Amino acid sequence: MIQIDKALIEKITEEVKRQIKKYETGIPVGVSNRHIHLSHEDLYKLFGNGYELTKYKDLSQPGQFAAKETVSIEGPKGSFKKVRILGPVRKDTQIEISVSDGFKLGITPIVRESGNIGDTPGVIIKGPKGRIVKNKGVIAALRHIHMPVDYAREHGFNNGDMVTVITEGIRKTAFYNVLIRVSDKYNLEMHIDMDEANSSGLKNGDRVEIVKK
Amino acid sequence: MIQIDKALIEKITEEVKRQIKKYETGIPVGVSNRHIHLSHEDLYKLFGNGYELTKYKDLSQPGQFAAKETVSIEGPKGSFKKVRILGPVRKDTQIEISVSDGFKLGITPIVRESGNIGDTPGVIIKGPKGRIVKNKGVIAALRHIHMPVDYAREHGFNNGDMVTVITEGIRKTAFYNVLIRVSDKYNLEMHIDMDEANSSGLKNGDRVEIVKK
Repeated sequence: MIQIDKALIEKITEEVKRQIKKYETGIPVGVSNRHIHLSHEDLYKLFGNGYELTKYKDLSQPGQFAAKETVSIEGPKGSFKKVRILGPVRKDTQIEISVSDGFKLGITPIVRESGNIGDTPGVIIKGPKGRIVKNKGVIAALRHIHMPVDYAREHGFNNGDMVTVITEGIRKTAFYNVLIRVSDKYNLEMHIDMDEANSSGLKNGDRVEIVKK
Repeated sequence: MIQIDKALIEKITEEVKRQIKKYETGIPVGVSNRHIHLSHEDLYKLFGNGYELTKYKDLSQPGQFAAKETVSIEGPKGSFKKVRILGPVRKDTQIEISVSDGFKLGITPIVRESGNIGDTPGVIIKGPKGRIVKNKGVIAALRHIHMPVDYAREHGFNNGDMVTVITEGIRKTAFYNVLIRVSDKYNLEMHIDMDEANSSGLKNGDRVEIVKK
């Protein structure tokens, strides 16, 4: 004879329902490690004239990929080898690091929206064919949510909105000032960096909720 | 003739008052880098029989100090040299690292209240006179607020309460599950680790608010 505690089973059922609902409605999380976007000009300086990046794997955002190629980046206090290049090439070279990475490099990255690199610190980049001294381009990416147009319309979000996102668990956290970026080229995903992931216990594929517009 | 915008001056005055109030009422923040507490037994194994720690500097909590002595810690994937020992010696050896540190070491620290090291991962510790293989003791410290008895009584907090703490700035964050620790041996201070500091932009001496009991 097995004893069944009805109250416990109901509690478990409720929790399972809650988790399934969260999975269905939550925003999937993508954790970004340090990486670099290169301009054509800088790609050629680092890898040789006319060089083209080789795809290593697709990223979750359509058309974006991690390249097989990596570079070294050097600051006044330290360096990182094998920093992944993300493709395709962009108008401007941009180096995305965490604040923790910044301590190792001796560089204080500015928290910025991707693409906005005015008045940001520089770094030295080394590739197999050359070395570049960049005088700007180092940022800690402002946390943001890539949002398809349909989803944004359905849920009442606009490009440029700032929202608050809440997590669960022992390191439960509310992240304020999360930028909404709407485009028909995007898949729904929240991007955070390693500091944000580690401080909140979030991992790739976890789901979070937008709690306030 | 100087034009004065009365509305602007009032706005600035209000902001200054708000900041002063925040300074007067806020909880000062202390950011903990990776460190280690040693038992007498382990101190002797690492530095020699009868060894005593030398004070390097006092910490903000009465009686606690950073020692001149450091050790190396080693995990399956990497190591850290010059990890600061905090004194005085304790009943059990405890190694406090961030989750980011854990990636470098190849160890996943458990988020735990200090002193609670059952079922936690181990690490290898090296000192000038010996090497110890610890089979437990590695934690990521649960964020907490050291609170004097008078302050706790006045503000209605009890030892063991969990509160939410809010920060300001571009990386504005609400930290849930912040443990209140009350003792007449404590100075008022919130302790967070490097991941939490870097993800929220908090630095030593910044002030934060408790927003919910």
